[in-house]
Amino acid sequence: MNVTLAQAETILAAAKKKAAEINTKMDICVVDSGSNLVAFARMDGAWIGSVDIAIKKARTAAWFMMDTKSLSPLVQPGESLYQIELSNGGLITFPGGVVLKHGDEVIGAIGVSGSTVEDDHVVATAGAQALK
Amino acid sequence: MNVTLAQAETILAAAKKKAAEINTKMDICVVDSGSNLVAFARMDGAWIGSVDIAIKKARTAAWFMMDTKSLSPLVQPGESLYQIELSNGGLITFPGGVVLKHGDEVIGAIGVSGSTVEDDHVVATAGAQALK
Amino acid sequence: MNVTLAQAETILAAAKKKAAEINTKMDICVVDSGSNLVAFARMDGAWIGSVDIAIKKARTAAWFMMDTKSLSPLVQPGESLYQIELSNGGLITFPGGVVLKHGDEVIGAIGVSGSTVEDDHVVATAGAQALK
Amino acid sequence: MNVTLAQAETILAAAKKKAAEINTKMDICVVDSGSNLVAFARMDGAWIGSVDIAIKKARTAAWFMMDTKSLSPLVQPGESLYQIELSNGGLITFPGGVVLKHGDEVIGAIGVSGSTVEDDHVVATAGAQALK
Repeated sequence: MNVTLAQAETILAAAKKKAAEINTKMDICVVDSGSNLVAFARMDGAWIGSVDIAIKKARTAAWFMMDTKSLSPLVQPGESLYQIELSNGGLITFPGGVVLKHGDEVIGAIGVSGSTVEDDHVVATAGAQALK
Repeated sequence: MNVTLAQAETILAAAKKKAAEINTKMDICVVDSGSNLVAFARMDGAWIGSVDIAIKKARTAAWFMMDTKSLSPLVQPGESLYQIELSNGGLITFPGGVVLKHGDEVIGAIGVSGSTVEDDHVVATAGAQALK
Repeated sequence: MNVTLAQAETILAAAKKKAAEINTKMDICVVDSGSNLVAFARMDGAWIGSVDIAIKKARTAAWFMMDTKSLSPLVQPGESLYQIELSNGGLITFPGGVVLKHGDEVIGAIGVSGSTVEDDHVVATAGAQALK
Repeated sequence: MNVTLAQAETILAAAKKKAAEINTKMDICVVDSGSNLVAFARMDGAWIGSVDIAIKKARTAAWFMMDTKSLSPLVQPGESLYQIELSNGGLITFPGGVVLKHGDEVIGAIGVSGSTVEDDHVVATAGAQALK
C-alpha cells in the first residue's frame, strides 16, 4: 500500500501552511513506501541546497521505516551506525524525515529541509498528521 | 526571474488535466531557470522509471533554454552534439521538456514522462501554456 | 502487491534449471514492483560483468512495466527513446528483463544476463512462468 | 578459490533460519573473494535501505579480508582509517560483514543488514558457519 498523489498533495499543503505559520521557507518531498518520489514543492526563496536534502530525508525515512530523528543518535562517532550515510547513494540522518502511516503500515514518508532541524521536523510532522 | 511555486502548481494542474484527457499517467516536473526543482507530481500508476526522466527533461530544457525536442536531431550519430547526454550527470534529449517563458525570458522548464514522447510533449506544452 | 521471497526463490530455481538445459551460465536477479532487489544468484562461472546487467535488466523492466525486449527498437539512433539508458543511474534496454505479473498487475521483474540476449530472454521467461 | 553458488545458497539458508529464530527480517548477501555478488535474499518486510548495506558489508569484508566489526574502531575520528568509507564507492564499517574461509583462505564474505548491528553480526556468523 502506497500514499496516493491526492494524499501527497494534502500533506504538502499542510506542511506549507505550517512552514508559513512559523515563518520559514521549506523544500518538501513525499515519497512512497519504495522511496520513489510522489510529490515535491520548493517554497519561494527556500534554499536550493535543501532540494536534495528534503528528498534524501524522505527516502531515508521510507527505506528504514523510521523518522530520521531516530537515526541521529545512532550515526555519531563511536555509535553503532557510524557512517551509514555512505549507503544508498547518500542518506540524511538528522531530523526532518517522518514516516507516513496507514494504521501500522508505512505507506511512504515526508522529508522537509530549509530551516533548523527542529523546524524541519515540526513541518514534516504537520504534513504527516494531515494524512489522518 | 524565476517561475514561482504558485505558477508551478498552476502548470502541474494544467499538465495533469491534459494527461487525464488523453488517458495517460504522467510524471511531471517544474524547474526554475537554474534547473533546480520547484515542483513535482507523479500521477497514481505512472512509471517509476519516469520520475528521473521527467526531472532530466525539465533540467535539460532549462540548461540549454530550448525544448528537448529541438535537441533530438542534433544528438544522433554523426551529428554535432552526439553523446551530449553524458554531460551534466545525464541529459534526456527526446521530446517532453519544454521551456517556460515570461515574454522572451526563460524562467524555467517543465518535463513530462510516462507515455509516448509525442504524448509527453503534448502534456508538457499544455503545462507551459498555463503560464500565460 | 509485491513478489515474495518464496516466489522469487521459485523463479530463480526455474531460471537456473532452464539455463542448465540450454548449457549456459547466468546471472539472475528478481526485483519487486518498486525495482528493489529481492533475490539474486550467479551461477558458477557466469560472467562477473553480468551481475550489474542482470540487476539493471530487472530494474528497467519493473520501472517501465514492460519487458526490456520491447524497449530495444525504441532506443536506437533516430528512434523516440534514443539514449534513455542515461536515466535512472543506467538502464539496460536489450532482451533479458521480463515483468512478473499477478493477473494484470506487475509485481516485480526478473533480469537475466550471461549469454546471447536471445538465451537471456529464454531463461528470464522460464523464470517468470514459474510464478504461474 | 571462491565460494560456489551451492555453498552460498547453504549460507543464505542458515542465515535466514537464524534471522527467523531471533525474530528479525534481514537482507543477506554473499560475495566471492573478488567482492562480486554471488547470491542475495531480502526477507519479506526487511528494510529496503538494507539491500545496499548488506551488499556493502559483504564487499567491505571481502575487500579487506576481515569482518567489518574489526574495522569499526579504526574508522573513528582521530583513528588511523578515519573516512575510509569514502573509498570504493562506499564502504560499511560497522558489524554485519563476515569473511568466509576455506581453511585459512578467504573465499568470500557474507553481509547482513536489517536489525541492530549485534543481530546483524549474529546472523552473518550463523551464515558463515554453515560453510563448515
